[in-house]
Amino acid sequence: MAKVKVGVMGYGVIGQRLADGVACQGDMELIGVVDVAPTLALRALAEKGMPFKLFCAVPDNICKLEDAGIPVAGTVDDLLGQVNVVLDATSAGIGRKNKEIYKERGLKAIFQGGEKNDIADTFFHGYANYEKGVGKDYLKLTSCNTTGLIRAVDCLDRAVGVERVAITIIRRCADPGDTQRGLVDVALVEPVPNHQAVDLMTIMPHIDATGVLVHVPTTHGHIISVVATPKKSISKEEILHIFGQHPRIRVVKIKDGFDSNAAMFRYARDLGNPRGDMYEIALFEETVAFSGDNILFSINIPQEAVVIPESVDAIRACMEMQTAREEAVSLTNKYLGLKARGN
Amino acid sequence: MAKVKVGVMGYGVIGQRLADGVACQGDMELIGVVDVAPTLALRALAEKGMPFKLFCAVPDNICKLEDAGIPVAGTVDDLLGQVNVVLDATSAGIGRKNKEIYKERGLKAIFQGGEKNDIADTFFHGYANYEKGVGKDYLKLTSCNTTGLIRAVDCLDRAVGVERVAITIIRRCADPGDTQRGLVDVALVEPVPNHQAVDLMTIMPHIDATGVLVHVPTTHGHIISVVATPKKSISKEEILHIFGQHPRIRVVKIKDGFDSNAAMFRYARDLGNPRGDMYEIALFEETVAFSGDNILFSINIPQEAVVIPESVDAIRACMEMQTAREEAVSLTNKYLGLKARGN
Amino acid sequence: MAKVKVGVMGYGVIGQRLADGVACQGDMELIGVVDVAPTLALRALAEKGMPFKLFCAVPDNICKLEDAGIPVAGTVDDLLGQVNVVLDATSAGIGRKNKEIYKERGLKAIFQGGEKNDIADTFFHGYANYEKGVGKDYLKLTSCNTTGLIRAVDCLDRAVGVERVAITIIRRCADPGDTQRGLVDVALVEPVPNHQAVDLMTIMPHIDATGVLVHVPTTHGHIISVVATPKKSISKEEILHIFGQHPRIRVVKIKDGFDSNAAMFRYARDLGNPRGDMYEIALFEETVAFSGDNILFSINIPQEAVVIPESVDAIRACMEMQTAREEAVSLTNKYLGLKARGN
Amino acid sequence: MAKVKVGVMGYGVIGQRLADGVACQGDMELIGVVDVAPTLALRALAEKGMPFKLFCAVPDNICKLEDAGIPVAGTVDDLLGQVNVVLDATSAGIGRKNKEIYKERGLKAIFQGGEKNDIADTFFHGYANYEKGVGKDYLKLTSCNTTGLIRAVDCLDRAVGVERVAITIIRRCADPGDTQRGLVDVALVEPVPNHQAVDLMTIMPHIDATGVLVHVPTTHGHIISVVATPKKSISKEEILHIFGQHPRIRVVKIKDGFDSNAAMFRYARDLGNPRGDMYEIALFEETVAFSGDNILFSINIPQEAVVIPESVDAIRACMEMQTAREEAVSLTNKYLGLKARGN
Repeated sequence: MAKVKVGVMGYGVIGQRLADGVACQGDMELIGVVDVAPTLALRALAEKGMPFKLFCAVPDNICKLEDAGIPVAGTVDDLLGQVNVVLDATSAGIGRKNKEIYKERGLKAIFQGGEKNDIADTFFHGYANYEKGVGKDYLKLTSCNTTGLIRAVDCLDRAVGVERVAITIIRRCADPGDTQRGLVDVALVEPVPNHQAVDLMTIMPHIDATGVLVHVPTTHGHIISVVATPKKSISKEEILHIFGQHPRIRVVKIKDGFDSNAAMFRYARDLGNPRGDMYEIALFEETVAFSGDNILFSINIPQEAVVIPESVDAIRACMEMQTAREEAVSLTNKYLGLKARGN
Repeated sequence: MAKVKVGVMGYGVIGQRLADGVACQGDMELIGVVDVAPTLALRALAEKGMPFKLFCAVPDNICKLEDAGIPVAGTVDDLLGQVNVVLDATSAGIGRKNKEIYKERGLKAIFQGGEKNDIADTFFHGYANYEKGVGKDYLKLTSCNTTGLIRAVDCLDRAVGVERVAITIIRRCADPGDTQRGLVDVALVEPVPNHQAVDLMTIMPHIDATGVLVHVPTTHGHIISVVATPKKSISKEEILHIFGQHPRIRVVKIKDGFDSNAAMFRYARDLGNPRGDMYEIALFEETVAFSGDNILFSINIPQEAVVIPESVDAIRACMEMQTAREEAVSLTNKYLGLKARGN
Repeated sequence: MAKVKVGVMGYGVIGQRLADGVACQGDMELIGVVDVAPTLALRALAEKGMPFKLFCAVPDNICKLEDAGIPVAGTVDDLLGQVNVVLDATSAGIGRKNKEIYKERGLKAIFQGGEKNDIADTFFHGYANYEKGVGKDYLKLTSCNTTGLIRAVDCLDRAVGVERVAITIIRRCADPGDTQRGLVDVALVEPVPNHQAVDLMTIMPHIDATGVLVHVPTTHGHIISVVATPKKSISKEEILHIFGQHPRIRVVKIKDGFDSNAAMFRYARDLGNPRGDMYEIALFEETVAFSGDNILFSINIPQEAVVIPESVDAIRACMEMQTAREEAVSLTNKYLGLKARGN
Repeated sequence: MAKVKVGVMGYGVIGQRLADGVACQGDMELIGVVDVAPTLALRALAEKGMPFKLFCAVPDNICKLEDAGIPVAGTVDDLLGQVNVVLDATSAGIGRKNKEIYKERGLKAIFQGGEKNDIADTFFHGYANYEKGVGKDYLKLTSCNTTGLIRAVDCLDRAVGVERVAITIIRRCADPGDTQRGLVDVALVEPVPNHQAVDLMTIMPHIDATGVLVHVPTTHGHIISVVATPKKSISKEEILHIFGQHPRIRVVKIKDGFDSNAAMFRYARDLGNPRGDMYEIALFEETVAFSGDNILFSINIPQEAVVIPESVDAIRACMEMQTAREEAVSLTNKYLGLKARGN
């Protein structure tokens, strides 16, 4: 079967990782990425010797890029003429303008969480509603927190049914190296409900969700504390077992040193993962507990890379590469090296 | 009636504020404070002209203090000979040694949250179990988080009964100016349950409590997200009303700018509060919500000063100044300028 | 002699402190402050019982303020009709528009460091060039870092002459409670020279100045490391002596615990200073050293309050309350409680 | 020629990177690493499939490691029996005890900056005093800040001679993922001179060095601001040229986005460097300036990996693999992929 040809629009924090993730898929071909200015990300790409091609979204900027030593393979039109599907990782709001261009060309496209829901036919999550994305023209991914949260809630939901979740999100307020945003010595509270709860209900309408979000001064993963009301009783051992079988969830022990968002970041670096990234959310084993019938657990969301697997799933869905959820996510997982680690 | 004579052992973050709080009470007399070395706190006391006396716990250190320009009124024995009750705010573990001295002298004493529970006859909270402290010789206060948390939970419990709470504590990891402790770019997760939940159950054994604690890099108040299961149904308006009537709880609106631990800290400074301190916890109005029958709300705990009112209550209880809870806390509140602010 | 009547435009971080500082001056009268919306600062003012009057810059907003429980005494015009001089502490850029209004009314005005230099007749520093401000209509103050830096450099310059300074500014990137700006886990370098060096040369044109500025994630004082080339030789003891005689410089010892910007902040709180503020810069005694003929020293700049004394000096200068520098700064110092503390 | 067989004692932040660095050298063979407990670093090594062997320093702990799924190849004795030289990266103080063991076995050893100078025959820096290390039994490396600082100062010194340096070190206070150390909202000043200046003078006794050190809350590279007094005049262009020719110095432009320690960290991740590490210091081009005859410049020190190249140089020196400095550092650079990038 011919490989599906993929282009990535926007080579920022997410775009870089989407390109890396697509490049790993045996049944996809990364045609190239698009950006507009000589960012650090593009300078690094050039210093690495351009493992894939760069196309420029603003023809007038080609000189500027080349002056910075960054080879340009052509314009955005050149890229769009060669691909079957676009992963749009441009800044929030730009995707809507780009959609018109994709439409004209009859190209399918997958947008990130920053865009409004109505940009897409389906608000998509690889594990929770894969089937709804199959064959659709435009999909929108959930944002980083929601993606990771849904992984865990969907996993529990398939096992015992989940009626309701109340979540507390401890949100990192900037990415590593971000000098434009930040907080110093502040924990900033947002009104309830947070958008992640609302988004979860959009994807999983049978679950009632709400919760608070607090921004804190870290650049590494978000931490989400979940109180979930299950439909059936389940033991702590069973909970750890089902999470442990999920290829995109790492069950980790605080006592082993996996005690923080920063420990997970450090571990990913020490693993030699590209960019020191982690696709899996971590579930801290010692945080699994009960409050009455409710299940408590806390997870770590590595915000830079967590959406990559589900974004790749989205390509499989809209391009009808696989029509069955299980088959699709298994392939994505295989190519990304994700596998069940638990007992 | 003769004023109750109070001494404060330890003039650190808590001891300084205990001394300030006692000095405000019309029916108490602050005899003095005890410390051992020329700390910044004592240098500031001297620069302010010694509004109260300092006694030295280590006679050999008197010269050192006086060389630093800090007048010393006598030894710890001199202080203990003049007081009816001691507020012990020494470092965790020292209180136990001091207790032997208090015993010998037949002095009542009140310990802070850092000591083990068995140091005291009663593990005490002014609002939740005042009566249990009346006439006792040794009381131990709850720690800062637990003190503030119990204020809110007790308030709800007296209104509708609380069956259960699941809490997520977002804990500040150092006080302003602390150069010995800290975290950088880390959100550190502790095993469930946190000690605050356990302590809450000790004080309020009819409530089931558990939850997670995450340390974050701020120096201002802790944020606690609470999921409480009430025994009777109650509306959001009623919840805001009962919290609004509590003299030690400020109901604040995020939309007014009270959006963070740091905003509360700044507001206390702008109020002209001594040391820029705040005795009240804040309840963020826009975080009050429901998840099924459960009530969600988030509070801010100003860790440096929050325990002062309940510590003053403890003096009233053990010294039998008032035998009724309502009467006692009302007097403490009056002298500290605490009053209901809600509608 | 009639008191000089002062109005303060803008009741933010600086405006609040200007109002406090003016209110302390025995020969000035604070007529009131002007602002436009129910900020936390104004809510605190109302909770304190309106120690001085508030005027509203936007008549349509008066209702909004009163709905928030903040009494309004009138419009900005009402204030301007009652004052002799305005301290303008509005956001950068607004001062220029306001100047037109002051001009029409024939009012003198003093602007803060955020405005462009050409807004004023004189770029002013109470200690370094007081005489140049005498009788002028419009003065502009130096910014917080420059104000503190010039205090130290001017002090040294008057003693032995300073030829040249090379400075490294370690700049706090947000104020306590600021949720709009910040950095997480970043030390951000700016091109040389920083504007503080340029500003120093504008005020003290006989000195050559340059240096680098690095933004770091703290909310407390800036730290400036200075390498100064003196014209005459001077001993470490003499340096400490002259700094110790300066009423706006505190010579502190790291070994006493004055080891950081945060320790200075904490000390100001413990002193009971209004808002926990500090007018004085701190000079860390153990950082005074020599590199060849050059003098090294490091200072702490408490950014929230440091400009207040020089702003009050500016009133004295432009209103010709005192024509001699020494007399003027002495009065400001007296009313603010500033005095030489060294030996 | 037979490869030199190297063992690494201690597999922490530095030990991990020493192992990686040695493994890249075509003329060295990494026999294995030694550690004592199932740290995250060892768990990551196991998850990567043990690219090299682990030996256990405490025989009783072998079970513990194997229970954690970490294969152990033998005891520390087994390793020491197979190597020609040891890189000791154990915690400060342990190296001294280990030295006795190395001595008994007649093994050469290279210690890190945490040990006292007298542990070694030579206090060593690959570029500044390679010759002094040739053939010696015990070398001690400079610490991270000093290593990077000396690279820059030595480079300038070889070009025009350096008489004197005054440095301001803005020191990161923890490594990424460190939960044991940290500062929140504090810039902590140390007495002058810092140890880095003293160490520089030990290695380069013809230069007078002093300066201040300020700890700040970041986990990424240190920033050092240098004021250097050259013996001969040199232009800005020449300075940039000589730094640009140094394979271990990256001259970067703030305007290109290389504006901070965090930007350098991010760039290293985007380059795909193992663990997201950077061996090179960065020199911020726009910080090069003059103050009188003095040269100002600021550099970034990537504290986790910066000492690796000079540590590899140390193997070459003590094992007499190369007797000439140029030849040695060139080989190290070649194997680590370090090359001049400037014009």
